[in-house]
Amino acid sequence: MSSYQNILVAVDFSDYGQKVALKAKQLAEQFNASLNIIHVLDNIPMPDTPYGMLIPLDTTDLTNELLEVEKEKFKSICDQLSIDVTRRRLVWGEPQNEITQTASKENIDLIVVGSHGRHGLAVLMGSTAKDVLYHAECDVLAVHLQD
Amino acid sequence: MSSYQNILVAVDFSDYGQKVALKAKQLAEQFNASLNIIHVLDNIPMPDTPYGMLIPLDTTDLTNELLEVEKEKFKSICDQLSIDVTRRRLVWGEPQNEITQTASKENIDLIVVGSHGRHGLAVLMGSTAKDVLYHAECDVLAVHLQD
Repeated sequence: MSSYQNILVAVDFSDYGQKVALKAKQLAEQFNASLNIIHVLDNIPMPDTPYGMLIPLDTTDLTNELLEVEKEKFKSICDQLSIDVTRRRLVWGEPQNEITQTASKENIDLIVVGSHGRHGLAVLMGSTAKDVLYHAECDVLAVHLQD
Repeated sequence: MSSYQNILVAVDFSDYGQKVALKAKQLAEQFNASLNIIHVLDNIPMPDTPYGMLIPLDTTDLTNELLEVEKEKFKSICDQLSIDVTRRRLVWGEPQNEITQTASKENIDLIVVGSHGRHGLAVLMGSTAKDVLYHAECDVLAVHLQD
């Protein structure tokens, strides 16, 4: 039996995210596993909702514009990895929460995330790998990224 | 090309360590990778050395006795996993330091460690997985362990 059957990779849209995505793709092929992908929108404000805070119209427009750009980038990386449309998640929230909750809901057995170790970007990026490790209920592979 | 060629698994001698070791073995087989193993002695005092602190004779005897027990346990787990004798490391020190330094020296491309997440034993075990993740210069797989 293969070690993993249902992999979730968390990506951003940097060259780093690309490296993590390709590693996850390679592993999914080696394990003959399903590959799921998630990108968490934590850099643009969530657009107005019936229950949300009122946002000035200009901001909403800007948000929608930014959202379209993010959607395009996400679609591009998903297409490039040939990930089934039912296995794509573009969500708002705290990265570690969204990643680990999605993993639980989708019966993921391996989460793949990028890790910058103790240098440079780690602090800026809020140490997602460490937080995912802390909260995940499955195995976590941290792909080492050179700063 | 396979994702990983040179794996290092860090074990303790609990049932948890056994689970981590078996997962690493399975991965090494799937990747056709070399499997290295390390156990860090952080629970028994280091015996007297020419440069070390003087220890009363009784303590040294006790240390040597404990060391023999640890050696036996280590040999047993290594033999069970059919790990080459040149790929076995039984060392004293801080787990995260010894694991990451050994990984660097031996050109390891994947470290496999156990992770207890946020529950129970994590605090007692000094969160080795998190620390290894933080200091490693290669990918790290944290095998999720149920408390």
